[in-house]
Amino acid sequence: MAKQAKKKNQDFLQVYGINGSSNILQAKKLKIVRIDIMMGGISEKKSWVVKLSRDKSLPVNRISKTQFLKQYPGKRTQGIVVTFMGKIIKDIPSFEKVVNNICLLALDNVEDPQNLGQIIRTAECAGIDGILIPEHGNVQATSTALQVSQGAFIHLPLYNCGNLHQQLRNLKSQGFWIVGMENKIKAKYWHEMDYQRKLVIVMGSEGKGIRPIIRKTCDDLVTIPMQGTLNSLNVSAAVSAVLFERHRQMLQASTN
Amino acid sequence: MAKQAKKKNQDFLQVYGINGSSNILQAKKLKIVRIDIMMGGISEKKSWVVKLSRDKSLPVNRISKTQFLKQYPGKRTQGIVVTFMGKIIKDIPSFEKVVNNICLLALDNVEDPQNLGQIIRTAECAGIDGILIPEHGNVQATSTALQVSQGAFIHLPLYNCGNLHQQLRNLKSQGFWIVGMENKIKAKYWHEMDYQRKLVIVMGSEGKGIRPIIRKTCDDLVTIPMQGTLNSLNVSAAVSAVLFERHRQMLQASTN
Repeated sequence: MAKQAKKKNQDFLQVYGINGSSNILQAKKLKIVRIDIMMGGISEKKSWVVKLSRDKSLPVNRISKTQFLKQYPGKRTQGIVVTFMGKIIKDIPSFEKVVNNICLLALDNVEDPQNLGQIIRTAECAGIDGILIPEHGNVQATSTALQVSQGAFIHLPLYNCGNLHQQLRNLKSQGFWIVGMENKIKAKYWHEMDYQRKLVIVMGSEGKGIRPIIRKTCDDLVTIPMQGTLNSLNVSAAVSAVLFERHRQMLQASTN
Repeated sequence: MAKQAKKKNQDFLQVYGINGSSNILQAKKLKIVRIDIMMGGISEKKSWVVKLSRDKSLPVNRISKTQFLKQYPGKRTQGIVVTFMGKIIKDIPSFEKVVNNICLLALDNVEDPQNLGQIIRTAECAGIDGILIPEHGNVQATSTALQVSQGAFIHLPLYNCGNLHQQLRNLKSQGFWIVGMENKIKAKYWHEMDYQRKLVIVMGSEGKGIRPIIRKTCDDLVTIPMQGTLNSLNVSAAVSAVLFERHRQMLQASTN
């Protein structure tokens, strides 16, 4: 599964809709393979799309409505689909010399591309410095994930961290504090943690949590106590709660 | 659109997958129309499904793999699809006599069923007392929304609030404090608000925000300042940040 996703990552990627496409087209490091625009569609009415169509350096295909809908059935494309290539997942740099409140997010056992996309989008809004995506047992940056992220992946580095356990040990040696966040465990509550430090937050999926070997590598474990009957907070919702608690602590420190 | 969705609500609803189906089957107030189970599928290996198949009072159809996949293509059903009926959206009761920290969530301009489903799920985990779904301009409780909520709608009341503006005025007269939450506005930060009261939180969608007439009805407005380039926090992620900030305040008050 991971292998297949990795292979796909080197192939063409596709994003649709006005917001998502607009972000892709403004990104400098992506190679635009093809822009399919539905004739008379919403996107054609947007001036930037018209301008784009006139710019001969970009491979724009204006396609009849019938053909377009046949080619992209059941998707909310708003009349625009961008096919592109590029190195979406970067190699992780050294953070040894960084001393301020840098915060990386690492994913363990997150398998759903919808969740990955939402997490990328939320993390970008919450001022996170990068997301570590393990090579195995984790969803990769597929077209679906990138689509859901609404272009956030262009502004937020996604790092291939190889083996997560080894990578966390490496980051520890660079001065990072590792905190694991999981549902349904006995641990500190999420807001009792001091997030103002050089930090990696490891998120486990709602079903599988964090693997034991990763849990052991964490310096701290936190949890969000559930208030309902179901007790199944989606991992992207948990990410939002945790990252904005961090954000709150930073804001409060800066006003004190 | 709203009319069509409302009509559908009286028709059959469908939820698939083991978690979602399990919650539906345990709900007392829903009428199970049909349970389709794929022969040899994952769900058949689960003991509760086997037990269920033996219970003759429930309309179980065991379907061959070929037929099942033809009937439910491209869905992650885990071999089980439950068709049901029931009054998913309730009439809103009087809260006049409630004096404690009750909190309702109201949606304005939320159009995506995926978002509604995620919001229901998150709100259930965060101990919210009900969600107000306006009759117009808002997505209704469609099968997609219920599917994404993973059964949370069974434990969390969804209220048909009719005209949201009128309903908020009504709730105000019952002693509720109304706070509107929107991206990209000048307002109090979300954590500067005291959530410990009889409260309605109105969430606007990330694209359209809250309608002006609703905004004027609010006693307070709050926002989450964005930290990235895109500034487009998904409404369900914003709900998570706000509801767990409320939860944090309640926890902190109870330990002080």
